[in-house]
Amino acid sequence: MEENKDVTIYDIAEKLNLATSTISRALKDHPTISSKTIKKVKKTAEEMGYVPNTLAAGLRGNKTNTIGVLIPTVTQPFLSSLISGIEITARKSGYNVIIMQSHDSYEEEVSMAKSLYGSRVSGIICSLAMKTIDTSHFQQFVSNNIPLVFVDRVPKDFNTFRVIIDNYAAGYKATTHLIEQGCTRIGHLTAGSKFGNLYTERMRGYMDALKKHGLPVEEELIADLKTVTYEEGVKSSNKLLDLKNRPDGIFASGDIMAVSAIQCAKKRGIKVPEELAVIGFNNDPISQIIDPNLSTITHPAEKMGQMSAEIILKSIKFPKKDEVKEITFLNTEVLVRESSKKI
Amino acid sequence: MEENKDVTIYDIAEKLNLATSTISRALKDHPTISSKTIKKVKKTAEEMGYVPNTLAAGLRGNKTNTIGVLIPTVTQPFLSSLISGIEITARKSGYNVIIMQSHDSYEEEVSMAKSLYGSRVSGIICSLAMKTIDTSHFQQFVSNNIPLVFVDRVPKDFNTFRVIIDNYAAGYKATTHLIEQGCTRIGHLTAGSKFGNLYTERMRGYMDALKKHGLPVEEELIADLKTVTYEEGVKSSNKLLDLKNRPDGIFASGDIMAVSAIQCAKKRGIKVPEELAVIGFNNDPISQIIDPNLSTITHPAEKMGQMSAEIILKSIKFPKKDEVKEITFLNTEVLVRESSKKI
Repeated sequence: MEENKDVTIYDIAEKLNLATSTISRALKDHPTISSKTIKKVKKTAEEMGYVPNTLAAGLRGNKTNTIGVLIPTVTQPFLSSLISGIEITARKSGYNVIIMQSHDSYEEEVSMAKSLYGSRVSGIICSLAMKTIDTSHFQQFVSNNIPLVFVDRVPKDFNTFRVIIDNYAAGYKATTHLIEQGCTRIGHLTAGSKFGNLYTERMRGYMDALKKHGLPVEEELIADLKTVTYEEGVKSSNKLLDLKNRPDGIFASGDIMAVSAIQCAKKRGIKVPEELAVIGFNNDPISQIIDPNLSTITHPAEKMGQMSAEIILKSIKFPKKDEVKEITFLNTEVLVRESSKKI
Repeated sequence: MEENKDVTIYDIAEKLNLATSTISRALKDHPTISSKTIKKVKKTAEEMGYVPNTLAAGLRGNKTNTIGVLIPTVTQPFLSSLISGIEITARKSGYNVIIMQSHDSYEEEVSMAKSLYGSRVSGIICSLAMKTIDTSHFQQFVSNNIPLVFVDRVPKDFNTFRVIIDNYAAGYKATTHLIEQGCTRIGHLTAGSKFGNLYTERMRGYMDALKKHGLPVEEELIADLKTVTYEEGVKSSNKLLDLKNRPDGIFASGDIMAVSAIQCAKKRGIKVPEELAVIGFNNDPISQIIDPNLSTITHPAEKMGQMSAEIILKSIKFPKKDEVKEITFLNTEVLVRESSKKI
């Protein structure tokens, strides 16, 4: 392939009869260069079609101005909003974002972490794959002082930055809301036994809220899904609604599961919220479309992406060795809509 | 920041008492190196924690093994599936994917194209911003033989690869389906006047299908949304349902608009599909959740991403100058579900 020759600062220097160092400084708004010269150099650079070679600049500093994002998938609403927050924030500081999808596979995650390391990313943001069994593949970033942030789905025992919500508190709040609406027999849709920590924490909140209000925790009221899909949600919702003594409220650990509960109830002629109050989790777009509108717990995806990127950018700018890596807790709220409003 | 020294091929060569060229070739499975040596070199490289510096390798070849993806947003279901298809395909060939969101702004798109060019991407895949008024900012890729693919939202008059669906044919098929179900007064929800080509083509198909079947095209039956949101969909659906002579079918140019039509009809006690048959566009996840399930037109997002990436990868591997740039049309299908099944 014949390539067009790129315009370099040498070409600009020759054209303007200035030193290359002057050109280089002028393009960076260096204070020792007059604003008149800066203006002239920038104008000429633009006319000549000069584009800074960020790749070469990256190699000189062994930096790529790139943040690697390693997540299970881009197609879940929570995760695509997370990416959006990361991209907008990174972009403002001139950083690119590389995306990799682990598809919840441990092996893929290991391989992708290696690949991102090999690409000399400036930092990495990761939400763990559901099947991740250990996290030693992230040690290479820590050992080489490459900023690392875990977000949402994070390891318990890895000393690095983490941006999370308090899943226990959120589960507690959601359940308490249903109790306050008069529910006394509250079912729970979860995927905890398969997908770990995040869901089990929400369930722990659910159980403690019941106990706190003197309600029994009944095993038959907890449905543990194999996968978080609408179809599995329908199966499990039907199981709960088939119970001899069926629930009058359901806390679902995700909006897709909550929506399945509403649809199953409606098909059976069970009135939502009068006979069954439902609350979900995430505030996915569907929660405002479903009829009745779904009460839910906010899960500030875009904000979590923004904060993760800000931590990376700050760590690049002000690197500190052996600093204490903070855990950032973001607030969640109960969004009361029609599906749970009994009073 | 103190950096740990990276292991290089020189370190491996020294340890094994072999030439660096042997190490380099062995790591690339070069045929002149014995499999025994290859095995030994790779084992040692792994033990020493060697990671190939793809950035330096990229600079030598002026390549980054990176595909730039410039799209309006990552949070729309169609676009996140598109990204997923690109990422999976690129990854299989060892390519990274950089994502940038134009948020439908022309100025952002221009700036991001410049930035991707500056990052020396190996290729670029773009779905145009809704507000893009010209496409000269993509000329820099063409001039420098950097493979460029436009996907879904593409320019009319730019000689490069395009991966699209036949929006006219899809609109025609959707409308014909409603006519075959017995509808005689078919409304249309679109966003054509604001968001151009893609929607106007679908509307052209809608109008031609009506004419072909001897049905009049009535202006009051076409609602042109300002933005493609659920709220705007509700407003426009209510306008159509408020008509003195209201429609008995609606073809919506997007699933979110179709869902709003169903919800509005249900709230008024209008039976779907008996009194109002509805068909959408995209086959978004919500189409299988809404009750009744939404008939829709498939829009093969992941496949379109895959094909776009394959074209880029092929162009990198077998560069041809001045070749004819193909337009790839992907097939769409009418997915008949409950919302339109009258017979």
